[in-house]
Amino acid sequence: MSATFVEKVCVIGAGSTKYGKLDDSISDISIQASVDAIGSAGIEPKEIKAGYISNVFGIADKQVHLGPVVMSNLGISERPSLTIESACGSGSISFREAYANVAAGFYDVVLVTGVEKVTHTGTDWTTTYFSYCSDFFYEGQSGASFPGLFASMARAYLTEFKATEEDFAMVAVKNHENGLLNPKAHLRKKISVDDVMNSAVVASPLKLYDCCPFSDGASSVIICSEKFAKDHGKDYIEVIGSGRGGSPAALQGREHLTTIPSTKIAAEAAYKMAGITPKDVDFAEVHDCFTIAEVIDTEDLGFFEKGKGVEAVREGQTKLNGSISINPSGGLKSKGHPIGATGVGQIVEVFDQLTGKAGERTVNDAKIGLTHNFGATGASCAVHLFKSV
Amino acid sequence: MSATFVEKVCVIGAGSTKYGKLDDSISDISIQASVDAIGSAGIEPKEIKAGYISNVFGIADKQVHLGPVVMSNLGISERPSLTIESACGSGSISFREAYANVAAGFYDVVLVTGVEKVTHTGTDWTTTYFSYCSDFFYEGQSGASFPGLFASMARAYLTEFKATEEDFAMVAVKNHENGLLNPKAHLRKKISVDDVMNSAVVASPLKLYDCCPFSDGASSVIICSEKFAKDHGKDYIEVIGSGRGGSPAALQGREHLTTIPSTKIAAEAAYKMAGITPKDVDFAEVHDCFTIAEVIDTEDLGFFEKGKGVEAVREGQTKLNGSISINPSGGLKSKGHPIGATGVGQIVEVFDQLTGKAGERTVNDAKIGLTHNFGATGASCAVHLFKSV
Repeated sequence: MSATFVEKVCVIGAGSTKYGKLDDSISDISIQASVDAIGSAGIEPKEIKAGYISNVFGIADKQVHLGPVVMSNLGISERPSLTIESACGSGSISFREAYANVAAGFYDVVLVTGVEKVTHTGTDWTTTYFSYCSDFFYEGQSGASFPGLFASMARAYLTEFKATEEDFAMVAVKNHENGLLNPKAHLRKKISVDDVMNSAVVASPLKLYDCCPFSDGASSVIICSEKFAKDHGKDYIEVIGSGRGGSPAALQGREHLTTIPSTKIAAEAAYKMAGITPKDVDFAEVHDCFTIAEVIDTEDLGFFEKGKGVEAVREGQTKLNGSISINPSGGLKSKGHPIGATGVGQIVEVFDQLTGKAGERTVNDAKIGLTHNFGATGASCAVHLFKSV
Repeated sequence: MSATFVEKVCVIGAGSTKYGKLDDSISDISIQASVDAIGSAGIEPKEIKAGYISNVFGIADKQVHLGPVVMSNLGISERPSLTIESACGSGSISFREAYANVAAGFYDVVLVTGVEKVTHTGTDWTTTYFSYCSDFFYEGQSGASFPGLFASMARAYLTEFKATEEDFAMVAVKNHENGLLNPKAHLRKKISVDDVMNSAVVASPLKLYDCCPFSDGASSVIICSEKFAKDHGKDYIEVIGSGRGGSPAALQGREHLTTIPSTKIAAEAAYKMAGITPKDVDFAEVHDCFTIAEVIDTEDLGFFEKGKGVEAVREGQTKLNGSISINPSGGLKSKGHPIGATGVGQIVEVFDQLTGKAGERTVNDAKIGLTHNFGATGASCAVHLFKSV
């Protein structure tokens, strides 16, 4: 069974707050990003027919039910809204729902805003509450928080393939290089492989600099039917592929620790819909919550053979304007990871790249960009493909 | 712009845990309701293409990112899932998203499961955290929790219209009468107007028995394309209308306190889609978080003129097998209000009513049922219409 795609779907605007430790409230940063995207799209708020918010821990800043708050502050309180949560994959999955509704013709213009505001709670709170995104019965309550779970994956990778901890470190180094060129990135700091190797061990073999930070931030995009974009003379990029998939919630249910099933399922669906192969992708924003994740992602997405992702990193293939630029924004590692916002922020980056707004970090001659964003250890995942027009 | 409705959408199965204080975990009760619905539909889990969970406070039982946990436990971890939150309206809004995806042909069979597990946290926790569903900047942080906000609406109603506190009390009495006939209801206890009037004042003019309880519970439905239902010889009910709407998030943004704009917008859209009027509706499950809410709902839904809802209650028009049966299940007031589950639970009741499974609380000769479910003070809302076939 395949959807009807009555409407081709486009992105006509994108906006974002800085990622990092922010002082404003979760409502305020949601509105700031939304207003930024609305301005970027050059539309009036009243043209927006629905609002899709993505957020996980609104409780941390005492505001859940964010949709009506955002819509009311935009002066369009009568419009429907909702919040979508799928752990760290919330943003892309919210985008997917908005996409489906526009593709089916339910709405012609939709606001998609992702947000998280947690840094004020402190590391104990975030580590504890984030662990509720794992399969808590099997993982969280046994003390397995995400650094530990990804460390298991990293250890398995080191065992199965010709890889070293230095290879993982090079992912962090690259992403920090890119993030340095991104004015909105959280960690704008050049680092070396030695810096990573000498940073505190969080969960062996992962060191502090293998891990993305906890960030606050909000990102927003405006999506619409191609008809709306054309009728209103908008600059736009087209959504050419959208895929979703799932994995066993707990790592213990997986056959292999060095691949994430949901990524493969989602990517296959997205490539098929777009009628392209991984070779056609010019750059990708992938879910690098830990350095090992980026390596596994680039293999599962079909950019490199299984076990060869580290070689590609070593050879610089994934650097900005390498054979395929991975995480030109700086990724979760350097740009930051405000979990509900992350997946939307990836699409903001793709929009900026494909519409000539990426400044110093521009991927040359890019026509097709991919976003890959998952929840927890990849229990939920969405992959999207975008094309410049 | 209207959607394409490539597929007519049906409900082929429904299941629910008991509502009340439950001992099992949030994951367990989610799975229990899901398995119940799958059994009711007579399908195999693998026939389900996606899972839509609705939940607000998974953190209370240390499990957010519930979708993959449910799907994994059903043996279909590869399927996409997500969680939708829109405060107390989460369930119906999750159903709406699933509906949109099936209507557009993205999936042919979808599981919709709503859940909440909060009673173990105690009243202080629930009252505090539930207030985060209001517009916290204007309401929650000023100490305005939901009983206080609905008390403002009740006071306004008493001032504007010919109504008494006893009229509101009769709503509670009626819903308890219905709930007594519902084996899964939380508060199965016959009460009198005097009981309500003599119960503790929570926020004047609302007394304890004007308020629905905090409940645990999970409810689940299986929705599918009409084609799937027919091809597989299923008993089903048809979704004939679906509407969404919004209201200013904070009460201070509303022109009137005795009407909820989102209800009117959502209902108008649903009636229009179905091509029917309020007179065609045989029974309705409406959002009676407080007795005043049911009165306002029945007016906003067009069953009675503004200000006349109390007259209808006085005359017994809304009783089981009155001129229009309101909340035959017992409603939030007696059946209970496990907030993420509530909107789905309403649809379970409609399914049971229209397929002859409602036992002693059967609405005679019912052909068309309506569900109305909102978040907070009605900042978000969804209305659905169902028809027996």
